[in-house]
Amino acid sequence: MTTAPSTRPGPGDPHHIGILLFDGVEELDAVGPWEVLSWWTRSYPEDGYTASTFSTDGSAVTCNKGLVISPHHSRDDVPEMAVLLHPGGDTRALSADDEHLEWLRKQRTVVPLLTSVCTGSLVYAKAGLLRERPATTYWNALGGLTENDPTIEVRADDRWVDDGDVVTAAGVSAGIDMALHLVRRLAGPDRAREVRRGIQYDPEPPV
Amino acid sequence: MTTAPSTRPGPGDPHHIGILLFDGVEELDAVGPWEVLSWWTRSYPEDGYTASTFSTDGSAVTCNKGLVISPHHSRDDVPEMAVLLHPGGDTRALSADDEHLEWLRKQRTVVPLLTSVCTGSLVYAKAGLLRERPATTYWNALGGLTENDPTIEVRADDRWVDDGDVVTAAGVSAGIDMALHLVRRLAGPDRAREVRRGIQYDPEPPV
Repeated sequence: MTTAPSTRPGPGDPHHIGILLFDGVEELDAVGPWEVLSWWTRSYPEDGYTASTFSTDGSAVTCNKGLVISPHHSRDDVPEMAVLLHPGGDTRALSADDEHLEWLRKQRTVVPLLTSVCTGSLVYAKAGLLRERPATTYWNALGGLTENDPTIEVRADDRWVDDGDVVTAAGVSAGIDMALHLVRRLAGPDRAREVRRGIQYDPEPPV
Repeated sequence: MTTAPSTRPGPGDPHHIGILLFDGVEELDAVGPWEVLSWWTRSYPEDGYTASTFSTDGSAVTCNKGLVISPHHSRDDVPEMAVLLHPGGDTRALSADDEHLEWLRKQRTVVPLLTSVCTGSLVYAKAGLLRERPATTYWNALGGLTENDPTIEVRADDRWVDDGDVVTAAGVSAGIDMALHLVRRLAGPDRAREVRRGIQYDPEPPV
């Protein structure tokens, strides 16, 4: 297992948040956190963070439900990251892609904070990044965590699991809550409340 | 004021839901409902609905926080709509675009159900489509409704307002709740609950 760097970037360190896009990414897994994090970083540049999206080669991706999104960067030109966010969706190809898994293991040595939404955590598990850690994922994929790594302590009922330098979230819409948790962690609860107000996040599920 | 057609498409009628994209559209305004509606229509084709996104000329749009999304259609080749969803964001250009407002008035005569998220309702108001109706919008834009049309009954505290053939939602994240309401209205509460479970929409705002 590789050693994770400090999770709090110091002054002068990069404060960039990169959201990975890939063919099959679930739309809201990526765009929910993007809304939260781009709202935060663009409204409060004084906090020193920026956010962008990237795909492996910088090409547009076709999401799991058919939306086509063009990332800001490729994996090679995305700014040095303080936080990586790995969404889920149809992650089967990524989990079978040794090159992607090796890239993730490399990120573990240089990115202070790895985060995931939904089945993004299955890819982390496959890469060995959740060894002997608590973690969660989409409700219908919980078994996949221990199939990939039996040492993972599955937290089935948590909306997100913050294990210091790794934060995993439950499915799809849970990425919004996890991203607000990130804002709270990186910039404090008052800021997180301002962002929540900004996106008028007072959910009222009708059913 | 134009007369709205029946809000329930009959057998053989088109059952398509079109989500408008435009430069300045707020990301979650569009993608929140897209996640709900695409999940529903792709998981349950037996319900007879389909969903897509479109922009005026079919070109990619740059959203309000900088994400670039490629629509499925242009305004001219989007399938005949049973439901139009007009997101918000930076809607100033659309509200000043007589050609867009005229297009919206035309839609009122052929699309059974007009819906909006956030400041999308300001554009409907400007087009005269909310005359003497109850409606809502983003919390910080409520005054814009009556500035555009003093006959509107503003519902400041509602997550969404269903006025039969027009449904307006509050800001940004409210589009998720409104879209689930649409699923309930068009396919019943059991289906809406299944979609809610699908996107694991058990919100837990951390602040």
